[in-house]
Amino acid sequence: MMEFIATEHQHRRFNPMTGQWILVSPHRMKRPWSGQNEPPQKTNLEEFDPTNPLCPGVTRQNGQKNPQYESTFVFTNDFPALLEDVPIPPESDDPLFQTGGARGTCRVMCFHPKSNKTLPVMTPKEIRCIIDTWIKEFQELSKKYIWVQIFENKGASMGCSNSHPHCQIWSCSFLPSEPQAKDKRFREYYEIHGRTMLNDYVRKELMNKERIVIENPDWLVVVPFWACYPFETMIIACDSKIKRFNDLSQVHINNLAITIKELTTKYDNLFNCSFPYSMGFHGAPTGDLMDKDFSHWTFHAIYYPPLLRSSSVRKFMVGFELLCQPQRDLTPEQAAEKLRNSSGKHHYTDHI
Amino acid sequence: MMEFIATEHQHRRFNPMTGQWILVSPHRMKRPWSGQNEPPQKTNLEEFDPTNPLCPGVTRQNGQKNPQYESTFVFTNDFPALLEDVPIPPESDDPLFQTGGARGTCRVMCFHPKSNKTLPVMTPKEIRCIIDTWIKEFQELSKKYIWVQIFENKGASMGCSNSHPHCQIWSCSFLPSEPQAKDKRFREYYEIHGRTMLNDYVRKELMNKERIVIENPDWLVVVPFWACYPFETMIIACDSKIKRFNDLSQVHINNLAITIKELTTKYDNLFNCSFPYSMGFHGAPTGDLMDKDFSHWTFHAIYYPPLLRSSSVRKFMVGFELLCQPQRDLTPEQAAEKLRNSSGKHHYTDHI
Ligand SMILES: O=P(O)(O)O[C@H]1O[C@H](CO)[C@@H](O)[C@H](O)[C@H]1O
Ligand SMILES: O=P(O)(O)O[C@H]1O[C@H](CO)[C@@H](O)[C@H](O)[C@H]1O
Repeated sequence: MMEFIATEHQHRRFNPMTGQWILVSPHRMKRPWSGQNEPPQKTNLEEFDPTNPLCPGVTRQNGQKNPQYESTFVFTNDFPALLEDVPIPPESDDPLFQTGGARGTCRVMCFHPKSNKTLPVMTPKEIRCIIDTWIKEFQELSKKYIWVQIFENKGASMGCSNSHPHCQIWSCSFLPSEPQAKDKRFREYYEIHGRTMLNDYVRKELMNKERIVIENPDWLVVVPFWACYPFETMIIACDSKIKRFNDLSQVHINNLAITIKELTTKYDNLFNCSFPYSMGFHGAPTGDLMDKDFSHWTFHAIYYPPLLRSSSVRKFMVGFELLCQPQRDLTPEQAAEKLRNSSGKHHYTDHI
Repeated sequence: MMEFIATEHQHRRFNPMTGQWILVSPHRMKRPWSGQNEPPQKTNLEEFDPTNPLCPGVTRQNGQKNPQYESTFVFTNDFPALLEDVPIPPESDDPLFQTGGARGTCRVMCFHPKSNKTLPVMTPKEIRCIIDTWIKEFQELSKKYIWVQIFENKGASMGCSNSHPHCQIWSCSFLPSEPQAKDKRFREYYEIHGRTMLNDYVRKELMNKERIVIENPDWLVVVPFWACYPFETMIIACDSKIKRFNDLSQVHINNLAITIKELTTKYDNLFNCSFPYSMGFHGAPTGDLMDKDFSHWTFHAIYYPPLLRSSSVRKFMVGFELLCQPQRDLTPEQAAEKLRNSSGKHHYTDHI
C-alpha cells in the first residue's frame, strides 16, 4: 500500500477541545468552482458617513446621539438578543422539551471614530486602546455574568450588518454550549496530565513549527491541527497562568496588539481584500464561578474566516458539514504556510 | 415578576438528539436589517443548458458524456471529498494530534433531465422515482459503508455550485460526528424509556399540534422544539420500525413523495422564491453494523434553510453562534405557523 501523505490523502482529525472530528480532503482543492461568488469586500470606505449609526455624533434610530468619540465607544445594543430582566420559563420534567432561563446584556463597541480604520491599518497604540476597553468591559461584566463573549463579525459575508469597525459583547447568565464543552475537556485533560491542554499544545506546536503563523514570547498564532475553516487560527497565551482578560500585563497587552495587527494584515494580504471573519476570545468562566479553580483553562482567541480560494470564493459549511461533520479542503499545515508567507506589511499603500 | 411568554421572552432550548442548547430571542425580529442581501434565487431557468455538466447528453470536464437520461441519473463525483483507496494515517498516542482513516465514495444524483424542474414542481410520480433511486443507491452503498449520507444543497446561498436539480451521496468508512452523537443519545433514551426518542417525540407533537407543518399517517413534518435555523424542519417516520431507507413500503414511499412535494412547495411559497436549504436523511448506521440492534433509531430527514425574513435576508450563523451556541430570532412555533399557513399550491402558475 502507498505511504500516507497528509497533503494528498483524505483523513480525519480530532478536536480535543470539543470532541468533534473533521474530514480533511486536500485533493479536493483541484475541483473547479462554479458556485456563488461573494461580492468584493469594499476597501475604500469613507472616513465618515452621517447615516451610519456607529459613527461619532450620529443620532441612532432610537433617538440617542453618539458622542464625538475619539478612540473606542461602547453602548448597549439597540436590538439585543439578550435582555437583563426577563421572566424564566417554567421547568419541565419531559426530557424532550427542556428549556432554560437566559438573561444577559449585549453591547456594541466601536473600535475607532473613522469608518475606514480596520484593525490591520490601525497603529499598535490604537489597538492597545481597544484591548484596554475589552479589559474594562470584561472586568465590569464578569462580576455579574458567568460568560462574557467578546466577538467581532467582520465583512458582510460573515453577517456583519455595519461596516464601521466594531465588535460585540454578549454577556450571559448561562454557560453556552461551546465553552461548556471546552471546560469539560480542558478539565479532563488537566486531571490526567496535570498541565493545561492548550499549554501542552503550545509547547508541541513550538517544537513542530509547521502550523505556526506568528510567534512571540507571549502569544502563539497557529492554524490548529483540527482547524475546520480553511484559514482558521488561534491566538493562544503562552503563559498558562493567563486564564482571562484581566490576567494580562502591560507587556501581554502590547504584544497582543502587535499580534492582532500582524495577523489581520496577513489575512488582508492573503487574498488582497479586507478579509472577513468571525473572531472571539475564550477564557475561564466568570460571575459566580470567578473564585472557583480554573487551573485547566488557557486564555485564547479564535478566528473563523470563511474564504477558501480568493476574495470571492468561500467555503460553504453546508450539506455534509451540517448533517455529518465539517470537511476542509486544504490541510491546516498548507494554510499555515500560506499565512506565514503572506506579508506583514499591509497592501493598502495609501494607509501606511 | 411577569409571566413567561415564549414569543416575547428570550430563553434556551435543549436539543435532546445532540445535547446542544439553542438561544431563542424572539423580540429580536424587531431589529432593522442593513447587512448583506442575497442575490435573488433564479426561478426561470432554462430547461437545458449545453454547458451544464449535469444536463443529459453533455460531456463533463473529464471527457465523460452523460447519457440522455429520462428520470434520475447517478454518477461518481468527478471531484470527490472521499476516495475509496487511500492509505490510512499512522496512529498517534498523543491525545492532541489524533487522526483517523477515512475512505468512501461520493456520488452525484440528478433528479430530472430538465434543469428547471425542482422538487416542488415535479409530479409525485417523478419524486417517487427519486426516492426509488435513493433506496437503490442506499441498498448498494450500505453493504460496504457504515454511513451513507444522502443530502441536497439547494441554492447558491447554500453552497450549491450547480443549479440543475440534484443531490449528493457521500458514503464513509467511519461514523461522522453528528450521527455518532445521535446514536449515543437515541440509545441512552431507549435504555431509560424503552421507546425510541423520536417516536415519543412524534406522539407528543401530534398531541400538542403547535409545531406541526404537515401530518399524514406515515410522516410527521415539524419545526422541532429545538430548531436552530429559522425554518428548520424534520420529516419523521411515524412508525418506529422504520430505521433506514430500505424499511420503506410502497405506501411509505408514496406518502414521502407527497410530503416532500408539499413541504418544498410551502417553502417556495413562504418568500416567493426557489427556497434554498441543505437537507439530508438520517437512519441507523449500516455496513458492518447492519445486523446490530438499532431499536433506538427512527428514520428521519432534516431541512436546514438559511432564510429568515425574505428571499434575500438570511440568518447568519456567525460570531456568537460559532463561538458559543446557535441563536434564533423567531420561535419554532411561530415558524411552524407560517409554514402551515403557506399555500400547498405552488406560486409558479406556468408550472402547474
Ligand atoms: O460538492 P459541491 O456541491 O460542489 O460543494 C458543496 O457541498 C459540499 C458538501 O456539503 C461542501 O463541502 C462544499 O463546501 C459545498 O460548496
Ligand atoms: O448583531 P448583528 O451584527 O446585526 O448580527 C450578526 O451577529 C449576530 C451574533 O453573532 C448573529 O446572531 C446574527 O445572525 C448576525 O447577523
